Amino acid sequence: MRCEIVAVGTELLLGQIVDTNSAWIGEQLALAGIDCHRHTAVGDNRDRMLAAMGEALERSDAVIVTGGLGPTQDDITRDVIAELLGVGLVRDESLVARIEAVFGGRGRPMPANNLRQADVPVGARTIDQMPGTAPGLVCPVGAVSSADGDDSPKVMYAVPGVPWEMHQMVEGTILPDLKRRAGISSVIRSRTLRTWGRSESGLAEDLADEIDRIDRDGGATIAFLASGMEGLKVRLTAKAATDAEVDALLADGEARVRAVAGPIVFGVDDQTMESVVLDLLVDQGLRLATAESLTGGMIGTRLTEVPGSSRAFVGSIVAYDGGVKRSLLGVPDGPVVSEEAVVAMALGACEQLGAEVSVAVTGVAGPDPQEGQEPGTVWMATCVDGEVEAVRTRWPFDRTRIRQFTVITVLDALRQRLLARQVG
Amino acid sequence: MRCEIVAVGTELLLGQIVDTNSAWIGEQLALAGIDCHRHTAVGDNRDRMLAAMGEALERSDAVIVTGGLGPTQDDITRDVIAELLGVGLVRDESLVARIEAVFGGRGRPMPANNLRQADVPVGARTIDQMPGTAPGLVCPVGAVSSADGDDSPKVMYAVPGVPWEMHQMVEGTILPDLKRRAGISSVIRSRTLRTWGRSESGLAEDLADEIDRIDRDGGATIAFLASGMEGLKVRLTAKAATDAEVDALLADGEARVRAVAGPIVFGVDDQTMESVVLDLLVDQGLRLATAESLTGGMIGTRLTEVPGSSRAFVGSIVAYDGGVKRSLLGVPDGPVVSEEAVVAMALGACEQLGAEVSVAVTGVAGPDPQEGQEPGTVWMATCVDGEVEAVRTRWPFDRTRIRQFTVITVLDALRQRLLARQVG
Repeated sequence: MRCEIVAVGTELLLGQIVDTNSAWIGEQLALAGIDCHRHTAVGDNRDRMLAAMGEALERSDAVIVTGGLGPTQDDITRDVIAELLGVGLVRDESLVARIEAVFGGRGRPMPANNLRQADVPVGARTIDQMPGTAPGLVCPVGAVSSADGDDSPKVMYAVPGVPWEMHQMVEGTILPDLKRRAGISSVIRSRTLRTWGRSESGLAEDLADEIDRIDRDGGATIAFLASGMEGLKVRLTAKAATDAEVDALLADGEARVRAVAGPIVFGVDDQTMESVVLDLLVDQGLRLATAESLTGGMIGTRLTEVPGSSRAFVGSIVAYDGGVKRSLLGVPDGPVVSEEAVVAMALGACEQLGAEVSVAVTGVAGPDPQEGQEPGTVWMATCVDGEVEAVRTRWPFDRTRIRQFTVITVLDALRQRLLARQVG
Repeated sequence: MRCEIVAVGTELLLGQIVDTNSAWIGEQLALAGIDCHRHTAVGDNRDRMLAAMGEALERSDAVIVTGGLGPTQDDITRDVIAELLGVGLVRDESLVARIEAVFGGRGRPMPANNLRQADVPVGARTIDQMPGTAPGLVCPVGAVSSADGDDSPKVMYAVPGVPWEMHQMVEGTILPDLKRRAGISSVIRSRTLRTWGRSESGLAEDLADEIDRIDRDGGATIAFLASGMEGLKVRLTAKAATDAEVDALLADGEARVRAVAGPIVFGVDDQTMESVVLDLLVDQGLRLATAESLTGGMIGTRLTEVPGSSRAFVGSIVAYDGGVKRSLLGVPDGPVVSEEAVVAMALGACEQLGAEVSVAVTGVAGPDPQEGQEPGTVWMATCVDGEVEAVRTRWPFDRTRIRQFTVITVLDALRQRLLARQVG
């Protein structure tokens, strides 16, 4: 089974929108074990769409088209598919009712234009999932021998360009249909371990024996993906006949990676450093405050992106100005990018904000040096049970990454201390 | 002149990386007046690269290939171009010296692998800009009649996938070369006016007469682009024979948009709401503090993304917890999503942080209601010269956008007050 993706939209060619849809679908196909050999983007233009979609269908067994299913005259994916397959369009009255219902639910009348969205190429069926007003399509291509039209030699799918509508249709209908057509009865699944504190090449070295063992004996495969302040991700992927077997392979792989990588693994899948730290704090009945200079509020921003963060996070004092560091946080006279300053900030945050735990950061974001110290020079501190630990680093990065790496690094230092506290 | 982009990299097909390069190049081509009809992504695979690049070259006059120019065995763009054009590769000794110099500058010896990067298809020339170790290529395709090989009927360019290396090569060599080949002697340039406070459809209505006038009489064209907390962008694009004429058209277009849109225009091109507010504060000799609840520090984070923000921004009190709002900011007992609370926060920020100006926000980020108020309910306040103005809104968005729209909206309210103060 060979698959391709065709993204439709002049705004993609003009660079007004970045095509994140093709990347997302590509990832899902890879995880499902289906080969994807090409991504193509074309404008909302009949001739060029016909050419791109026709060529894709010639090369491949399945083509997923995204975009061009809206209600306006620009949206011609339905028409082009019908023309390519040499069939007409027929209005599906049950779809008309569903689209009208969507508008009714929003308390608005349906514009006449939206009727176009109920037109379906003859021989195609609509995708059950329909979170918006644009129906997705499954279009069998070539001779069909069974009554339900599901054994065609090739197939073309059409989904809207709106990401959350597209996601539901791909997950709910297209991936299962592709796996059925490809005869993939095996289950492929991934688990991502998020790590912090080791470089990609360093971690690859640590895991070299394990990777050799997998090559030799099989098991969940390992891939690395550096993801900035989301951590260095280690993705385990396993394939087996049943859910239970896949889960066992992933559990075994995870245990082996953890045995080597140890406490640098901070989370699994969607867990972020922030959510993990907040969970540890809640478990231990502790409240967190932050004192930020360099990061300007980014630690608090990241923490409060997690719904429910108010269970453990009380607030921050962002002391960007030296005077504020002294008046509100008790930083002594002298340099503000220093151990003395960051220790005072960590203690001051606990005291002023009424928390048992704090993190504090001060440093030089650049582009210019400060107090004779180079950009990237950063002091980070954590305060737990009244005891402060401080560490200095020097990031070889630009302003943005200096700030981002500082956020995840100081939160990881807190995580390690909370873990030790739990054990101790 | 018809152009296409081919992005090379298996990681693009697998969705491990989103192809932002094609979008960026597409935008530059559009601004230069060169048509781009297709984007294609293929994996690091000889046969598929040959097919995709060959088809692109058949359809179009110019093909820009990104990626596959690195030093590893996976990086085969050089080889595939040579094969496609039916020529050999020749090692360019001056390139060897340049690549060695890059490593020397970093204090590291050059791995032998990197020598491959100095191999150039016969008949091609290297792009002058070379910020990394990967040289870019200009490869004339077809018969050349002049000695410098620059009048070939078609052309293929190859640039690295690393964005900042690619950007320099496209801007410095490829766009000028494409314009020369296309005989575009005219100048096309854009200017973006950033606005806040009016919806896209509302602003389009306001400017409808002006857009009709342009259709009729010519002038800089207008396009809208909603860009979240970067504002609603109004892009003016003008084409003329000379720089001076283009500048005049853009200046005229800008004046006309400003005459209609008035003070909702907050910045031009790369100016952000934060940089504009900071400039106004510096001009007026004022210092800014913030008191944040809902946004968790995002206002401070955004302000301190601007280098030099310490000239006007002193800091924030992030009072996520109700107790902190009362103890540090003097918020009275009672609901914390209220006019009384946000007014106290704005005054408390000025007092505690020693600033003449402040902004304050408190609200319900969701997903759950708070104090009986729905997610999206937000109070925002600005304090200037001791006077507080507060306003309530209800955003119909998710958690992320509720926070982002609050940040730009409260800073815009401050901007309006600073402008009035300047005039008054």
